Amino acid sequence: MASPVTPPRGMRDYLPADKAKREYALGRIRDVYTRYGFDEIETPVVEDYQRLHGGLGGDNEKLTFNVLKRGLGADDLRAASESGDVSGIADLGLRFDLTVPLARFYTTHRGELPPVFRAIQIAPVWRAERPQKGRYRQFVQCDIDIFGEPGPLAEIELISATAAALRELGLSGFTFRLNDRRILTSMLTAFGFVEREHPGVLITIDKLDKIGADGVVAELREREATASAIDALEAYLARIDGLEAGEFGVEQIRSLLPEGVDDEVIAELAGIGDAVRAASTAAGVPEGQTPLVQFDPFLVRGMGYYTGPIFEIHHPELGYSLGGGGRYDNVVGRFLGQEVPASGASLGFDRLVDLIDVDAARHDEALVLVYDRDVDPATLVALKTQLVARGARVRLEKRAKNLKGLLDRVTQAGFTAFAVVRSDTRRIDELEFKPLA
Amino acid sequence: MASPVTPPRGMRDYLPADKAKREYALGRIRDVYTRYGFDEIETPVVEDYQRLHGGLGGDNEKLTFNVLKRGLGADDLRAASESGDVSGIADLGLRFDLTVPLARFYTTHRGELPPVFRAIQIAPVWRAERPQKGRYRQFVQCDIDIFGEPGPLAEIELISATAAALRELGLSGFTFRLNDRRILTSMLTAFGFVEREHPGVLITIDKLDKIGADGVVAELREREATASAIDALEAYLARIDGLEAGEFGVEQIRSLLPEGVDDEVIAELAGIGDAVRAASTAAGVPEGQTPLVQFDPFLVRGMGYYTGPIFEIHHPELGYSLGGGGRYDNVVGRFLGQEVPASGASLGFDRLVDLIDVDAARHDEALVLVYDRDVDPATLVALKTQLVARGARVRLEKRAKNLKGLLDRVTQAGFTAFAVVRSDTRRIDELEFKPLA
Repeated sequence: MASPVTPPRGMRDYLPADKAKREYALGRIRDVYTRYGFDEIETPVVEDYQRLHGGLGGDNEKLTFNVLKRGLGADDLRAASESGDVSGIADLGLRFDLTVPLARFYTTHRGELPPVFRAIQIAPVWRAERPQKGRYRQFVQCDIDIFGEPGPLAEIELISATAAALRELGLSGFTFRLNDRRILTSMLTAFGFVEREHPGVLITIDKLDKIGADGVVAELREREATASAIDALEAYLARIDGLEAGEFGVEQIRSLLPEGVDDEVIAELAGIGDAVRAASTAAGVPEGQTPLVQFDPFLVRGMGYYTGPIFEIHHPELGYSLGGGGRYDNVVGRFLGQEVPASGASLGFDRLVDLIDVDAARHDEALVLVYDRDVDPATLVALKTQLVARGARVRLEKRAKNLKGLLDRVTQAGFTAFAVVRSDTRRIDELEFKPLA
Repeated sequence: MASPVTPPRGMRDYLPADKAKREYALGRIRDVYTRYGFDEIETPVVEDYQRLHGGLGGDNEKLTFNVLKRGLGADDLRAASESGDVSGIADLGLRFDLTVPLARFYTTHRGELPPVFRAIQIAPVWRAERPQKGRYRQFVQCDIDIFGEPGPLAEIELISATAAALRELGLSGFTFRLNDRRILTSMLTAFGFVEREHPGVLITIDKLDKIGADGVVAELREREATASAIDALEAYLARIDGLEAGEFGVEQIRSLLPEGVDDEVIAELAGIGDAVRAASTAAGVPEGQTPLVQFDPFLVRGMGYYTGPIFEIHHPELGYSLGGGGRYDNVVGRFLGQEVPASGASLGFDRLVDLIDVDAARHDEALVLVYDRDVDPATLVALKTQLVARGARVRLEKRAKNLKGLLDRVTQAGFTAFAVVRSDTRRIDELEFKPLA
């Protein structure tokens, strides 16, 4: 008896029905993003070790699957054991996101790319997280990014295209929660947090959905942030508690914010929401559905590199986000030595594909040729090839004792009709096809 | 000045035009293989270290990119430096082919798969080879495999489907060189090589195309294989030198072989060639083109695991093969502990895509909206979204001083028409589209 053989821990195989559904959904997303004017690119699955551990990836860097250098000798290994770290024996790593590779790609190829570059990346990433339900160590991200556009046009395009991709997959009722890192910064300043406290305070505020207002305040007191600022935040949280976010204009956003937040940033954010709704209406999405864009003054997004508008996609029935994104103007500069405006949106494909309902294995004309042992293989393949040439999907199946079981199985697999090939069958017009239920 | 930033050594980025062409070609191959009754599956890019270093991969195992265990301590590293090997500190590796993962997948999921399982795998593999022109460290293989079919029907289906995929990409003039490991074995036995000499002799014969008959004989003499057997091989090579392979039947194959080769194997091989040609004719491929299948008594194929028919795809104008495959009945048993008949065909996608000529970036209606700085972003995206909803691909471009340069660039990128959006444009019927050359 062989021991159990499984895929690597926390990773998955895809059987035919799942794979067909995934390829179908990826094809739809790719098509929508292409029609929205984006261009697909691809980078290798690995990047240089130093590039993946340069600080851009935040906590994800610790989750990198690092690749050993080839041809290591005992000396290299001894040096690593003495220094206690692996950076001398690993030269590559599997990417943990598509942002670091994209920034590297843009830096490498800038001369060959248009002034405003709209990129699609649909590709797997890897994170060595503790495996748990719904969280895998290899998963697919669908990212679109715009480099070279400094204004809110970028975010309007990104959110509109992302919403269109979700609609294309038959999903509805989702909401884009929108905020701006500059609003968060001026809020914290207005409350009285000093600048060096901001990153830590944002990490805590990011947990508001999970630990609630009391939890946030308690954690901040433990962090020993400026006490009067915590009091101001607590009072503010109590004031907005229970307010419905709803669709928003400049006035509504301002009413939700403390004094001292920049009017221009508020106007820009409101403009993004208005424009996305207008574009959505223009595309024929009925008014009166769940508001497409909501202001969320406590949306943080985990990554440290965001600099402007940020957003996250939620659905009332799901306890997790489907994706998100935002502006990250300072990232490309790390490689290029020169700032480039950048903004992006990412869909978590694996969560998405679980929500959609489609029988992608279905083919208009999918035929099964059931044959007996005594039928000549050459005849079989000639019959099959002729049916394929006429546009059908065709599978050969040796007759089983349990014919009903065989027919149930191929029906399940999406086949639509079958015929029996006899030893004297020579032409496809001799085949009598019967529909499969 | 930032230092040069490039993809990892020996690996490539794909810019939009290349990526579009690749996705187009992959889509065509996927479609043909699906119509030929195969089912696509997917496995993680990594497999367990022990599985990748279990002997199945031959020389490729040495080219594995191994992945470091996470959370290694100084003790682990010291142990590795003392033992001088890395198997204690690496637990995963990037797959070097799609055969080992498929055998593992089949073992894992056998209960959920049909008795005869026809698999498609279209996916990258990684090999840490010395980078050189046309040889990369990450490249894509398109594999189809049939598990559970012991007879030549498998090879006929595999070769027919592979030929159809090549035709679908607009390629012609390619030849399937066909041989059988059993023929090679009985040839070597007929010459007088003893069994333990066979693997080494096959490695030398595999170089016939490169080093010629004299080179093969010289290398064998150096190996000190049985001298009388080398003499017999030399005489045989001289006898068949200059013979045209051509299409073949049983008589022709037998005439090319020494005495002592099994008639049944010859008949099976001839049957495969005949059936592939018959199916090709049935599919409407004109007769009189380059013969589709040729017998090549010295085709070896590198991997040690082949057990029956083997084949390789060649084109008269190319100095390398486009792919190949064969029967490997003994592989799944390594994981499952039970033999399963298996045969497969693999296309080297990267070589293939270089040969095809298609402008995949082209979209029927691809529109550019050129806008001035003073146009409202909301209006722009609303206009764009309406055009997308009507089926067009649409890109926004800010008006450049050099409008002609801009138009040349988007024409190059496959766009078909453009219109200028003015600050008072509100509806798409106000746009005047002009064709791009």
